[in-house]
Amino acid sequence: MSAFCQHRKNCLKCSTGVPVYLSFVLIVLYGMPEAQGVWPMPQKMSQSSESYLLNPQGFTFQYANDSVAQPGCSVLDEAFRRYFTLIFPGYNGGNARGDLFAVVVNVQSGECDGYPDENSTENYYLLVSAGLGFLKAETVWGALRGLETFSQLVEQDDYDTYYVKETEIVDFPRFPFRGILLDTSRHFLPLPAIMETLDAMAYNKFNVFHWHIVDDPSFPYESYSFPDLSDKGAFHRFTHVYTQSDVQKVISYARLLGIRVMPEFDSPGHTLSWGKGQPDLLTPCYRGKVPSGSFGPVNPILNSSYEFMVRLLKEVSTVFPDSYIHLGGDEVSFTCWKSNPQVRSFMEKMGFGGDFTKLEAFYIENLVNITAALNKTSVLWQDAFDHHENIPNNTVLLVWRGTPPKYHWEMSQMTKAGYRVLLTAPWYLNHISYGQDWRDAYNVRPLNFTGTDEQKKLVIGGEVCMWGEYVDATNLMARLWPRGSAAAERLWSDEEQTSNLSKAYTRLSNFRCRMVRRGIRAEPVYVGYCKHEYKGL
Amino acid sequence: MSAFCQHRKNCLKCSTGVPVYLSFVLIVLYGMPEAQGVWPMPQKMSQSSESYLLNPQGFTFQYANDSVAQPGCSVLDEAFRRYFTLIFPGYNGGNARGDLFAVVVNVQSGECDGYPDENSTENYYLLVSAGLGFLKAETVWGALRGLETFSQLVEQDDYDTYYVKETEIVDFPRFPFRGILLDTSRHFLPLPAIMETLDAMAYNKFNVFHWHIVDDPSFPYESYSFPDLSDKGAFHRFTHVYTQSDVQKVISYARLLGIRVMPEFDSPGHTLSWGKGQPDLLTPCYRGKVPSGSFGPVNPILNSSYEFMVRLLKEVSTVFPDSYIHLGGDEVSFTCWKSNPQVRSFMEKMGFGGDFTKLEAFYIENLVNITAALNKTSVLWQDAFDHHENIPNNTVLLVWRGTPPKYHWEMSQMTKAGYRVLLTAPWYLNHISYGQDWRDAYNVRPLNFTGTDEQKKLVIGGEVCMWGEYVDATNLMARLWPRGSAAAERLWSDEEQTSNLSKAYTRLSNFRCRMVRRGIRAEPVYVGYCKHEYKGL
Repeated sequence: MSAFCQHRKNCLKCSTGVPVYLSFVLIVLYGMPEAQGVWPMPQKMSQSSESYLLNPQGFTFQYANDSVAQPGCSVLDEAFRRYFTLIFPGYNGGNARGDLFAVVVNVQSGECDGYPDENSTENYYLLVSAGLGFLKAETVWGALRGLETFSQLVEQDDYDTYYVKETEIVDFPRFPFRGILLDTSRHFLPLPAIMETLDAMAYNKFNVFHWHIVDDPSFPYESYSFPDLSDKGAFHRFTHVYTQSDVQKVISYARLLGIRVMPEFDSPGHTLSWGKGQPDLLTPCYRGKVPSGSFGPVNPILNSSYEFMVRLLKEVSTVFPDSYIHLGGDEVSFTCWKSNPQVRSFMEKMGFGGDFTKLEAFYIENLVNITAALNKTSVLWQDAFDHHENIPNNTVLLVWRGTPPKYHWEMSQMTKAGYRVLLTAPWYLNHISYGQDWRDAYNVRPLNFTGTDEQKKLVIGGEVCMWGEYVDATNLMARLWPRGSAAAERLWSDEEQTSNLSKAYTRLSNFRCRMVRRGIRAEPVYVGYCKHEYKGL
Repeated sequence: MSAFCQHRKNCLKCSTGVPVYLSFVLIVLYGMPEAQGVWPMPQKMSQSSESYLLNPQGFTFQYANDSVAQPGCSVLDEAFRRYFTLIFPGYNGGNARGDLFAVVVNVQSGECDGYPDENSTENYYLLVSAGLGFLKAETVWGALRGLETFSQLVEQDDYDTYYVKETEIVDFPRFPFRGILLDTSRHFLPLPAIMETLDAMAYNKFNVFHWHIVDDPSFPYESYSFPDLSDKGAFHRFTHVYTQSDVQKVISYARLLGIRVMPEFDSPGHTLSWGKGQPDLLTPCYRGKVPSGSFGPVNPILNSSYEFMVRLLKEVSTVFPDSYIHLGGDEVSFTCWKSNPQVRSFMEKMGFGGDFTKLEAFYIENLVNITAALNKTSVLWQDAFDHHENIPNNTVLLVWRGTPPKYHWEMSQMTKAGYRVLLTAPWYLNHISYGQDWRDAYNVRPLNFTGTDEQKKLVIGGEVCMWGEYVDATNLMARLWPRGSAAAERLWSDEEQTSNLSKAYTRLSNFRCRMVRRGIRAEPVYVGYCKHEYKGL
């Protein structure tokens, strides 16, 4: 600590861990150079031209004496190991010794063994000075974000010497929910592909893995309540399933990166694969007066359907610790329901007339209630709201349709009705086009809709969707990165500071090379090169 | 041999290696099942439902007694090793023994140590019967194509047992030139990325690697005549160059796969990086009466430019054994030439008036003559022809602009003028769009232009271009495969037999899984799965 305090002038009680905001403000006012190296851009950052050599042999991470988290804190112990390798990618275990440098971490709450959740703060304060990095955060999750930032401050010069500039950062996310959706139903993604995505998410400060785990084409989730679902609904019952142990591995791995895992069991549509292992679940479609042999959405008129969903969701709520469960609810086709005479007479009995959106809403409301009884928050695609404005108010809605002004209008309506909202419409990054389409993802203005400040606060974030029609482990990483990074910055950083595309281009190109150096197959932004090209073919 | 002869009825002198065309015709007439497993589709193929187990321990490749190629033939010795692994991807070296199976190879000419060239025939005949595969080809290059086909006939059943069906194939390429262009200037591609592309090319029966090795952004080719070109023009003189040894590795590797390496040194445009290591090569651009400090195309008015090109092309013609050298000649901007007073007075002296296409043609003609004196065939982008119909007649022209009917019209004009033509316009596969855009590459009809049979014969093939603006080793394979496979089938197979998209879809999906199994990061065609998913992250 003393080295640091000797070096800086306005050092206030740094040894006790109180952030030196005073000095920070002064530095910002003097207009110090802009952050080049950190993506997504921190909220407030200043750097001087002073730089310090880092030597792997003399480098360490430490817990501050007054940190609540101390050695044994799983999240940070693991992070120290991980970031040592990320900071010194060329480290060969040599024995040279040199300048000492310690990153001292001070965490104010000690939830080392819990899971990040919707209320986890990710704020951190980082000060880099001679011989010392000082990182302070309320939670271990904030500390993880700060460690990531620190790792990105470290550069290598032309002699491959590591160095870091004198830096001061106050940082926090613009939105608390910053997600990536992977679709493991249209193509099965082997665990390493998921883990690698989680790694890259952490580099980009994403914090929610939205696991669209099942859908029409396959049901790879191995349910212990209903083993037939994957036995019969997966592409292959052994090679193309996520066992309970796999799911636990993903959740544990994500936890260590400060990433929540939000499962989606989309119904009543998108459930074709469910029907294979749960025979009476889906609505039999009719051709005229006889069943056609094909099936539609979950049958909403049978008690057994709800009994099944209660058991399944109960299992899901136990397996996945996150407080959010995504219930889907999108793109329900009414054709099959309309064809089925039992469904039609149920409609009559319920007084729904010919309005099948009412039947859809009836189903959804039942599921939201089941989920609420399990103490979980329901997340739904926008369709539920579009068809039925009275879904329970605690629901979180995902806006996925259209381009501006359409999705802005939708967000305005939803927040006016008091719902929390997530935006994904402009971030369907499975869609591709030739050229620098990261710019479209970057140019998004999530809050540019008509509404009060209170309404804006109901936008809790957004997510990138990587639907699987044309995506599997062969092309996932290159399709997702660095285009996903554009969304990452929009979701984390201050919009005004990050509205210049050409500045972003330079920073993104650099950051992309950093990801490549870390083994992430992030595709090039444009013509050029990385000092260390991708070689892991 | 005897096992085979006992098994088949119409076996005519098979032990002496004469193809049994008679039996083949009969089988085709009886409408035996269509080839599912081989991509690109062989010209003539019949299969029965009879299938034979293959056991790695009992499997071997042999040279036929009357084959001109015998043990020691480098191309085939290496191919036997390679295909053993490709045929038995799950082989774990166990010791079980089982049914014997030999693939007996009979090659009629013995050029085992040469290079494939424009006249190499690739015809082969393959007969698979009980205990025996019989492969006959005029050249080792044809034998390689046959081995690839045989490897694709081998399937694994649900017990992972290998088997092959009784099959008879007569095959030959529709076009002799089937190329892939890689651009190593806009992004540097490490050698493994090039080698892996060559592997996949062989799986797809491509036979020319068009190495667009240098361009504006960088000059990675290490010239021994002009070492400054890469020392100063590469992204990095050590990490981002192809040394002479690297180039030899690529050429040798390609040779063993029956792939020609056609180098491109594009000039007079696209040479910005050349100027860094060869100061007086490029035209100084002028702003008004003074040089602006920027540079344009190669300076076509200086003897020194041609002296340089003579030395460079002489080196290139020695380093690259192929008879083709691609001289570029595309997209020459006249702005800089127009601005330069010396160029303008040269134009006057030569009587070119204000027509800068004449100056361009003057330059190109000089280069074609230099190349001819080196006993090489010049290849040029279509621009040279568009601007100057009298380029030397032995030149090969690459059609790269437009969509039908434009490129068909161009091909019609070129072949009418007697030039040999290659088509690439519809196969710029660096361009991407969402969805199954392999269909566009597949739907190409190269010969659908107005012209005589003689004109059609002048179309010697085509190539897939993978320009590097947005492509490097991170995304090359997924962007190129299996979309490139669509072009491969159009260039190898009979067009009528391969005009049905939905049949092609099924076959391509299977073939893509086969490539994935072989470690090629070929992206999915659509929703579904491979028995063995890509795991090599």
